[in-house]
Amino acid sequence: MFTETTIRWRDNMRRLRDNKLFELFTVAVIIFSSINIGAKSYPLPPWIDLSLNVLDWVVTIYFVVEITVRYLAEGNKTFWRRGWNIFDFFIVVVSLIPINESEYALLARLLRLFRVMRLVFFVPQLRMMVEALLIAIPRIGYVALMMFIIFYIYGAAGNLFFADINNVLWGNVGIAMLTLFRIATFEDWTDVMYETMEVYPFSWIYYLTFIFLNAFVFLNMMIGVVINVMQEAHDRMEKEEHINEPTIEQQLAEINHRLKNIEANTVPPADKSSTSRK
Amino acid sequence: MFTETTIRWRDNMRRLRDNKLFELFTVAVIIFSSINIGAKSYPLPPWIDLSLNVLDWVVTIYFVVEITVRYLAEGNKTFWRRGWNIFDFFIVVVSLIPINESEYALLARLLRLFRVMRLVFFVPQLRMMVEALLIAIPRIGYVALMMFIIFYIYGAAGNLFFADINNVLWGNVGIAMLTLFRIATFEDWTDVMYETMEVYPFSWIYYLTFIFLNAFVFLNMMIGVVINVMQEAHDRMEKEEHINEPTIEQQLAEINHRLKNIEANTVPPADKSSTSRK
Amino acid sequence: MFTETTIRWRDNMRRLRDNKLFELFTVAVIIFSSINIGAKSYPLPPWIDLSLNVLDWVVTIYFVVEITVRYLAEGNKTFWRRGWNIFDFFIVVVSLIPINESEYALLARLLRLFRVMRLVFFVPQLRMMVEALLIAIPRIGYVALMMFIIFYIYGAAGNLFFADINNVLWGNVGIAMLTLFRIATFEDWTDVMYETMEVYPFSWIYYLTFIFLNAFVFLNMMIGVVINVMQEAHDRMEKEEHINEPTIEQQLAEINHRLKNIEANTVPPADKSSTSRK
Amino acid sequence: MFTETTIRWRDNMRRLRDNKLFELFTVAVIIFSSINIGAKSYPLPPWIDLSLNVLDWVVTIYFVVEITVRYLAEGNKTFWRRGWNIFDFFIVVVSLIPINESEYALLARLLRLFRVMRLVFFVPQLRMMVEALLIAIPRIGYVALMMFIIFYIYGAAGNLFFADINNVLWGNVGIAMLTLFRIATFEDWTDVMYETMEVYPFSWIYYLTFIFLNAFVFLNMMIGVVINVMQEAHDRMEKEEHINEPTIEQQLAEINHRLKNIEANTVPPADKSSTSRK
Repeated sequence: MFTETTIRWRDNMRRLRDNKLFELFTVAVIIFSSINIGAKSYPLPPWIDLSLNVLDWVVTIYFVVEITVRYLAEGNKTFWRRGWNIFDFFIVVVSLIPINESEYALLARLLRLFRVMRLVFFVPQLRMMVEALLIAIPRIGYVALMMFIIFYIYGAAGNLFFADINNVLWGNVGIAMLTLFRIATFEDWTDVMYETMEVYPFSWIYYLTFIFLNAFVFLNMMIGVVINVMQEAHDRMEKEEHINEPTIEQQLAEINHRLKNIEANTVPPADKSSTSRK
Repeated sequence: MFTETTIRWRDNMRRLRDNKLFELFTVAVIIFSSINIGAKSYPLPPWIDLSLNVLDWVVTIYFVVEITVRYLAEGNKTFWRRGWNIFDFFIVVVSLIPINESEYALLARLLRLFRVMRLVFFVPQLRMMVEALLIAIPRIGYVALMMFIIFYIYGAAGNLFFADINNVLWGNVGIAMLTLFRIATFEDWTDVMYETMEVYPFSWIYYLTFIFLNAFVFLNMMIGVVINVMQEAHDRMEKEEHINEPTIEQQLAEINHRLKNIEANTVPPADKSSTSRK
Repeated sequence: MFTETTIRWRDNMRRLRDNKLFELFTVAVIIFSSINIGAKSYPLPPWIDLSLNVLDWVVTIYFVVEITVRYLAEGNKTFWRRGWNIFDFFIVVVSLIPINESEYALLARLLRLFRVMRLVFFVPQLRMMVEALLIAIPRIGYVALMMFIIFYIYGAAGNLFFADINNVLWGNVGIAMLTLFRIATFEDWTDVMYETMEVYPFSWIYYLTFIFLNAFVFLNMMIGVVINVMQEAHDRMEKEEHINEPTIEQQLAEINHRLKNIEANTVPPADKSSTSRK
Repeated sequence: MFTETTIRWRDNMRRLRDNKLFELFTVAVIIFSSINIGAKSYPLPPWIDLSLNVLDWVVTIYFVVEITVRYLAEGNKTFWRRGWNIFDFFIVVVSLIPINESEYALLARLLRLFRVMRLVFFVPQLRMMVEALLIAIPRIGYVALMMFIIFYIYGAAGNLFFADINNVLWGNVGIAMLTLFRIATFEDWTDVMYETMEVYPFSWIYYLTFIFLNAFVFLNMMIGVVINVMQEAHDRMEKEEHINEPTIEQQLAEINHRLKNIEANTVPPADKSSTSRK
């Protein structure tokens, strides 16, 4: 009797979860919650500020109810198996933590900010995009390692030579690598160069080789990605065609076999020898 | 009798509209009108300024006549069905609105500026380009939404942490997002970073993750576009080839069928059993 | 007798022109001449400066002799037919013009600078690159026109609204378009924006729409180029394969024809009806 | 007896070299050594600084032992044949040179910095990337030459006209080319332009043509690389398919030949004449 109630209960939850209106309402609540966070950064009359705070609590409660419905609908096992559910659960739970607003107000508001990310969960196209990004990470992993080595060597060399010239830019390897990233984005990089060129007139070699090396590795990565994408596209085409292609060869094999049989009965032995290819 | 005159009238209008000289003259008038607008930004002797103003009115009248000809030639229904006609009509009508030059001089001149866009209407290649742009909008719609979410989260976080450091750059979510767009274009972004690093020494993480995330989404979009373009090109090729490709297999199937018939009549039963494939 | 001497003379010229050593020596002279021009920008002791000037005259005389040899070898008609010869001839002649060094020294040195371009004439790979550039010009012509229209409209609008704020940046349409080009390269564009935002707080719309429109047209151009290149590559492949492809179909047609003949003699009428496809 | 010991010795060395643990330990030592170099750029308590110096010597000795093991394992001839071994050997030897730390401290630390590059030797993916970079160099060689010619001509022209305006930026051809590289990266290029526009109001032509020419050559290089990559991918596909493709046509040819024989024996002479194609 107990399990029967549980099943009926879960069925109701499922129907609610799959309800298009329920989903749309949740998306609307997320968007409202997002706007709410942004709105607080503008000066507002006190009564609006207060009502927004109240609504913020209503949103929090709604989120808890909504994720509970989804949890009950999917069941304990199925729910935790999907990475997206864990991600979504984490965001909702984190914004529940009661923080003394006066002291850690920043942290509390930052945690609530993560709710905007729930939108990614509810729009399938955005979810696909995030998944594509996650898949692409290992592909560019070694390029990132290569880049890091280049930055590290140039950073250490820059610290070695230029630390006495400008300690703010080249004070230690970490700061030097940040300065190099700035140079890689072409952000006021000549100011950095002209400063060191006054002491080491040939230090432009340092900057130009760094920029060219960077451009080179980046270009190679782009080409690699294009080749990869083309190869995948080509393989997909191949697979699609493979359903038809063997038919031609199978048919040819069958034709050959049949001809052999016909030949055996119609062509006199003298003619047959000429069939062998030259 | 009335309708007959209308038809003859419309025929005349059509002949005028399709006249190559009439079209070229209209393009010349648009170019003259465009140069006219630009010329006014330079200091000119009063008599030229005056004559340009007069010519501007002549141009306006010509435009009204020209669009009337096109309207009468195409007929009421056909005319309004094409989006380009509505666009063109709107531009001409808008520059007719009589505005007191002394008060809303800026607006009046801005409205007249839109006439330059009529050139797009008259050059087919430009029209195709604008149509291609309009078609591409939905394709990048979700990428734009993703970008907006990233900008919004970083904007709200930036406003949260950095508003007390520099209110001009991080004062509210809107301004913070504008600052982030500036960072995305690498425009003096280190100045913004160094300022906040004095209070939060680890705030470089905020800027670097933002830049990398942006680059990543942008790269993905580019790859997506390339794949899309390749897929379309491949599909077009497929369709072209599909008219010929099945013929080979169909012909082979027919050959097989015919051979079977021949076999049935020439090969003795004992041989036939070996035809079955292993 | 006269024509015979001419022919012998031309043969000698041709042999000289096609001499690998003569060509290499000419390239060496061009490189020396190029270095010579650059060297003069550094402070040099007077005797080196003087000898460089003398050598410059020697180079000029050698260039005249060299082009005369090529002219005589190719004959009047053939010589002028190639665009590259005219380009080369023009460069050599222009640096011959005797200019009073004290007055138009700048112009004289500028004209001599064009000699560096002769290197492009003598290295086939560079010549091919320049030819590729010239071929690509019409392909991007309409994109350039579109860009110009965008720049012109935004330039005129910018001049209209912002001329009173900063006359140096928005004084007339020409200057405004130069400022817009600066914005398109992201060069200190926020300084320009912040200045106008003080008067028109919503002028960021002007800058952002301009940047996005630009990026959009540019992206479309890139995609267009990629499609173009792919289409060309595909067409080339098609053509290559077309030499083999008809063979399959021709052979199939021949097989079909032969089968018909065999069938006519071996298969009884009752069986034949089943050959028709379902 | 002597050679036997040598062989056994070499076998031991080989086993040690191919030991996965030995390789991983070497990589760990390289990483430690790299971190060591970076750590020295931060202020450290004296005892850590001292122990790091001691560990640096331990690392140096380990590197000598490690490369000796690899040298003995591969044998004299095989070892020197691989470019990577020479590169690795050079890095280890160079960091052995005893330099008076007080005088040439910078150089000594710079030489030790090269050890980070050993990591590239030990990670196959990074080694492949460096090899790909080396292969790509000749491919972009002529583009680099073209770029150099453009920079040289514009550099010499810039020096000619603008040297009197700003000697720091246009003082000689070398400095002018560096300034042009700065303009090519869009780094504060308008400051340079506005300065010269005060003397030569039309000098914006110089900058804009330079930027467009640069963009054009760069775009052409990108397209060239894409075409190249596509051509290679297509050629690879062609080769793969060439193992199967001729079979279809050869088989069809054989079928035709066989049918001819069958025809010759079954079809009466009158019918045969119609087999010839029209």
